Amino acid sequence: MLGVGDDCALLPLDPGMQLATSTDMLLEGRHFLADIDPRALGHKALAVNLSDLAAMGAKPLACVLALSVPTADTGWLQAFADGFYTLADESGCPLVGGDTTRSPWGVVINVTVFGQVDPALALRRDAARVGDDIWVTGTLGAADIALRLLQGRLPPDSYRLAVLRPALERPMPPWRFAQSLAGVAHAALDISDGLAQDLGHILTASHCGAELDLAALPVDRGLNGLDQEVCRQAVLDGGDVYQLCFTAPPARREIITELARASATPVARIGRIVAGAGLSVQSPDGTLAPYHAAGFDHFS
Amino acid sequence: MLGVGDDCALLPLDPGMQLATSTDMLLEGRHFLADIDPRALGHKALAVNLSDLAAMGAKPLACVLALSVPTADTGWLQAFADGFYTLADESGCPLVGGDTTRSPWGVVINVTVFGQVDPALALRRDAARVGDDIWVTGTLGAADIALRLLQGRLPPDSYRLAVLRPALERPMPPWRFAQSLAGVAHAALDISDGLAQDLGHILTASHCGAELDLAALPVDRGLNGLDQEVCRQAVLDGGDVYQLCFTAPPARREIITELARASATPVARIGRIVAGAGLSVQSPDGTLAPYHAAGFDHFS
Repeated sequence: MLGVGDDCALLPLDPGMQLATSTDMLLEGRHFLADIDPRALGHKALAVNLSDLAAMGAKPLACVLALSVPTADTGWLQAFADGFYTLADESGCPLVGGDTTRSPWGVVINVTVFGQVDPALALRRDAARVGDDIWVTGTLGAADIALRLLQGRLPPDSYRLAVLRPALERPMPPWRFAQSLAGVAHAALDISDGLAQDLGHILTASHCGAELDLAALPVDRGLNGLDQEVCRQAVLDGGDVYQLCFTAPPARREIITELARASATPVARIGRIVAGAGLSVQSPDGTLAPYHAAGFDHFS
Repeated sequence: MLGVGDDCALLPLDPGMQLATSTDMLLEGRHFLADIDPRALGHKALAVNLSDLAAMGAKPLACVLALSVPTADTGWLQAFADGFYTLADESGCPLVGGDTTRSPWGVVINVTVFGQVDPALALRRDAARVGDDIWVTGTLGAADIALRLLQGRLPPDSYRLAVLRPALERPMPPWRFAQSLAGVAHAALDISDGLAQDLGHILTASHCGAELDLAALPVDRGLNGLDQEVCRQAVLDGGDVYQLCFTAPPARREIITELARASATPVARIGRIVAGAGLSVQSPDGTLAPYHAAGFDHFS
């Protein structure tokens, strides 16, 4: 591998593998606030991209970073780099190239990640089948409530904010578990724009519908005691969740539970793929009602 | 190839090839002005990255674009896309993924390109050898003088500006010729930060020195009639030149000239790699003097 220092980085792929790649831009004032902990920001800039690799079942290989900052604040840059490199080490995704410039505005970050996956086993949006279980990794709702607390859209609650804030600022996508899902699960994607909206992309691409069991959704414990409607919204529509939603046939429940245990990844079975179109949600009382997503809009 | 629409794009490589990748961020107010022709901007955003692939001798495969704009101005976006897609078509480098967001400031563009190259034949900075000829593609000085005219750092001259402006706004890196150089040339890089500064990177990485013949430098014809010292600076230190500087043994002069003719690429032999360190410039009167680059600093 030829890393930083030439015009391009060079990366080998294993035989039979294809390159999986994704790119994300984060802007100050849009995706994060100026006073964010730079270590958390460095972590998150890479994490959101690792989440896209995980959603394909791809193994992380390397990443490149373009960073634009208004001033060369050494302490800030060092902390940002610490957060970035720590996650890069943990995920086996070394930085192999980059571009640093002075910004006329605030901080702008663009990360592109590279992974590899056997194209026959890659997890795609269009591969869900009627009868599949629907699964989700991790817990739901934490990042959304943390954001609402930070933005003053919920009454101040510093204890709850302290509990929930890591989910917003230091997400940990399940990249190891995701690799083991390639060839086991059918469809997958990350739910960064909210469970209901992103699951909707699977349904559209796979030409099917879905029923979710509200009682089965893995609500983050940090939401305990919140108004039920606030919770429901956070869990179904809250964005910034760098976890996976995936579908797999019921015959694979045991292997999925095993794989999740092996990589210490929490998983929950939350519903099923059905014939038809659109998403319905089953309340604990058994009533089934259509649900229309109100997830994150990148251009609002 | 799995393009836009899933979490990642998937790209196959030919057997034995490695991925070559590079990323570049362009910010309004820093790399371009708000009133730039959006078609030219779309072109340039891809061109600067194709230049990095060319510098490795890599064949373009695909690209991803992250674009952040303050308003969804359809006419602007259409023109930007036209400029981008036209060059993507011409260079065989289709857009396979992206990310579009609203910017709280001006326009921010990040392009990452993917190419493939046989790692044994890739053009690297550290491969120059004493005795090599030094070559450059295209002409020198046009983009720098265009920029100085636009910034009012030279007396107004609208005719000259019209002649030179395409070099600044619609650079055409020699990606086809560059692929044919893989295995023929020794070292190469693009001279986007200025010939003297970028050639310096070859010298440092390859542990050698260089002598340039001032009279052999391919001065752009649009510089005719300018002050000699202004020309000399533009040619040696002017940035934004998306052309290649490469080194090759004298025995390959004929094949290089043939390859250049086959891809209609202007080339000039401008000096030689010598033992020692640093860059010297030989004036037409035969005197040889050390030259210290004053090229583009990404953080000034």
